[in-house]
Amino acid sequence: MNTLIKPIASMFFLFYLGFELQAQTDEKVLETIYKTALTNGQSYQWLDHLSNKIGGRLSGSENAELAVQYTKSELEEMGLDKVWLQPVMVPKWVRGLQEYAYIESVPGEQMAVNICALGGSVATPGNGLKAAVVEVKTFEELAALGTEAIQGKIVFFNRPMQPDLIQTFDSYGGCVDQRYAGAMEAAKYKAAGVIVRSVNLRLDDYPHTGSMSYGDMPVEQRIPSAAISTNDAEKLSALLADNPNLQFYFKQSCQQLPDVQSYNVIGEITGSEFPNEFILVGGHLDSWDLGDGAHDDGAGVVQSMEVLRLMKLSGIKPKRSLRVVLFMNEENGLRGATKYAEEAKRNGENHIFALESDAGGFTPRGFSFQAGDNNYAQILSWQSLFKPYLIHYFEKGGSGADVGPLKSDTNVLAGLRPDSQRYFDHHHAAIDTFEHVNKRELELGAATMTALVYLFDKYGIVKEERLKPVMD
Amino acid sequence: MNTLIKPIASMFFLFYLGFELQAQTDEKVLETIYKTALTNGQSYQWLDHLSNKIGGRLSGSENAELAVQYTKSELEEMGLDKVWLQPVMVPKWVRGLQEYAYIESVPGEQMAVNICALGGSVATPGNGLKAAVVEVKTFEELAALGTEAIQGKIVFFNRPMQPDLIQTFDSYGGCVDQRYAGAMEAAKYKAAGVIVRSVNLRLDDYPHTGSMSYGDMPVEQRIPSAAISTNDAEKLSALLADNPNLQFYFKQSCQQLPDVQSYNVIGEITGSEFPNEFILVGGHLDSWDLGDGAHDDGAGVVQSMEVLRLMKLSGIKPKRSLRVVLFMNEENGLRGATKYAEEAKRNGENHIFALESDAGGFTPRGFSFQAGDNNYAQILSWQSLFKPYLIHYFEKGGSGADVGPLKSDTNVLAGLRPDSQRYFDHHHAAIDTFEHVNKRELELGAATMTALVYLFDKYGIVKEERLKPVMD
Repeated sequence: MNTLIKPIASMFFLFYLGFELQAQTDEKVLETIYKTALTNGQSYQWLDHLSNKIGGRLSGSENAELAVQYTKSELEEMGLDKVWLQPVMVPKWVRGLQEYAYIESVPGEQMAVNICALGGSVATPGNGLKAAVVEVKTFEELAALGTEAIQGKIVFFNRPMQPDLIQTFDSYGGCVDQRYAGAMEAAKYKAAGVIVRSVNLRLDDYPHTGSMSYGDMPVEQRIPSAAISTNDAEKLSALLADNPNLQFYFKQSCQQLPDVQSYNVIGEITGSEFPNEFILVGGHLDSWDLGDGAHDDGAGVVQSMEVLRLMKLSGIKPKRSLRVVLFMNEENGLRGATKYAEEAKRNGENHIFALESDAGGFTPRGFSFQAGDNNYAQILSWQSLFKPYLIHYFEKGGSGADVGPLKSDTNVLAGLRPDSQRYFDHHHAAIDTFEHVNKRELELGAATMTALVYLFDKYGIVKEERLKPVMD
Repeated sequence: MNTLIKPIASMFFLFYLGFELQAQTDEKVLETIYKTALTNGQSYQWLDHLSNKIGGRLSGSENAELAVQYTKSELEEMGLDKVWLQPVMVPKWVRGLQEYAYIESVPGEQMAVNICALGGSVATPGNGLKAAVVEVKTFEELAALGTEAIQGKIVFFNRPMQPDLIQTFDSYGGCVDQRYAGAMEAAKYKAAGVIVRSVNLRLDDYPHTGSMSYGDMPVEQRIPSAAISTNDAEKLSALLADNPNLQFYFKQSCQQLPDVQSYNVIGEITGSEFPNEFILVGGHLDSWDLGDGAHDDGAGVVQSMEVLRLMKLSGIKPKRSLRVVLFMNEENGLRGATKYAEEAKRNGENHIFALESDAGGFTPRGFSFQAGDNNYAQILSWQSLFKPYLIHYFEKGGSGADVGPLKSDTNVLAGLRPDSQRYFDHHHAAIDTFEHVNKRELELGAATMTALVYLFDKYGIVKEERLKPVMD
């Protein structure tokens, strides 16, 4: 070999070796993370406790408080650098007695149907509400009918989820306005009440609750609003086609009580090099009350806790501060997320990356990112590391409701994206229970989140270039 | 523009336009296929009938015969060019009375455990078999113990599935030798019987059956062999650690009857241009008897039928002959597959591509291919067409047991690869039932198969170059 070339070649060799080692190191680290998650996981046992020992964790409920105490205690067991509760006032809506409803097509013949009050709804009168029904699919249809056709009647919103979209969250987005704003819209035309087809792709007997809002409507104008199971929505629609004058009865005793004190639960491993650069993983601790909230969002809670545990077990000491945040009140207020973001801003904490898991505990497929082009390019450069774990989805898109308030011009937010096909079978219904979560799928999600957190901790985020104004 | 360049540019433009149109056409066709599958599918209703009206379809059983008649009749309804039954003699093994087993660690105190006979096993003596237990994890361990330690005892094979492999079929491959050959091996050392840990990644109470073989062992040397649930395997192992002298009792009355007549069910759309080039889609119509065989392989059967239906509904007239084959006796003999391949060879039918669905009805992730490099390159060129449907897995590997005998030097075989995390929770157990199949996941699998079949029909297979001997 030419002696002049030799030192250059050596330098190149060392550079190449360094590059190879670094690449191999990331591969090895991911291997350790996944292996640990699948052979020595804790998330499934945590979820068992949250689901079966505690149960549904509606904001302001005793169960929500038990979940705060339980997860705080479990985080303390893990030997993190800090664990604390962040106080936040939350709304307290209670369902009251089990709802009851029927269709009366022939006077005196009552066909019971499955309904549940929507979260935030007012009660019916004590004896229930009985009225004729007007079926619509859109707010435009409702407006076209107007007060004359609507006044004193029950508006039945029956727009189904679109079945031919591959990502079921897109179908959800196309329907959820009926649930959230149906009562507000129908009240404009003096409807007596609202029944909404459950936001569920499947035909079954479960009513699915979820948040609704009256906006700034005066209390005396508010009308009760309930979800009906998809099977019963089909039944009601078919009977209405035969008999537009049938009567619908429903009774619910839910009410909004004064706000109560609750908490976000926070744990931290303080960064060894950049303690004021924060990486956040989280889910929401509250849930609806009909099931035990195993998928929404018990799974996200225990996966987020597991990220910090897997980092420790895998021997990774983060350079940046790594926080798990279990947000309170995502479902009906987002108070915990709002509070956390306010406090982070007040304390000048620089959250460079925040990742939420709030799409169910199913097999992970990848992530959706809110990121600028340079950071997205860096993320794509990591994609091949995930291939052995069948993680393939790395797209720009939304992140999560709880991390949303942390978005800045420079940071990156992300949401775990599990397989979504079964999610809306369970979402906000009595069938969102522990036995529908698969241990391996849950653990693979936790490992996938940990792998991404490891990479963001190691490489940080990159600077985004600002768009220059086009000259001439 | 220079007049000389213009015609060349035009040619280029036309070429480019042709290319674009062709690409767009494939995209549009796939869109139509997926949309039709999700809005106008038939596979779920077929599976409901196979699972709930018929049930488990063990080879040689009345249910298997009912399934033959039902699927033939449904294929005839579809208006295919030909539908027929291909006769094949199949083994008939029957389970007899429900099995019964217990552990007796303290004399007189019996702890019942969950077992089931393995398919093909002989019965215990009429009063059952009671003996001491020797636990092993490998055949090497068994051989090391030898006849002195084994004679007259029950060998308990307790090697669990490896939990840290991402693809659960790999974990299955690492365990199934115990089930298949455990009795054959243990009999060499004069064991009295064999108990095998169920091939299940989960800890639960279901015993999982499956095929086992005595090879060419004389009938009088054959010993009974049963699977035990994973929870009970753990229990037995723990009790053995405390008391190596405990007794195990089991009783089963299964038996092998003479072979009976059965059938492969075949339907065909004859190709418009190349009728002797065959594209095959299939699954197996037989199942085990403990559940209703919804995942294994009811799903594959109805998805394969749906492929031909979706082609017709999407207005695609295949150039090549497209066959659906519902194979009989995959589980305990592979007689249907063997017969089909023999007949295809005898008739000189050129099967250019065969695709099997036999890995459950879960969300499809892609395919595994047995293909030469040139065909694999062509397949990879189609990969981007599948991206909108979250189909990302296109790897070389195995295909399916039933299509395996059709492999030639020039053709391509493939297996649908659904998400595998939950599959072995259900496989060969009483929990393989219809309610564990999700309609959308099943339909997405059928659409994904149809899309691939459409592409193979349109583009055919490409020639593989033979490897040249390396010169010096």
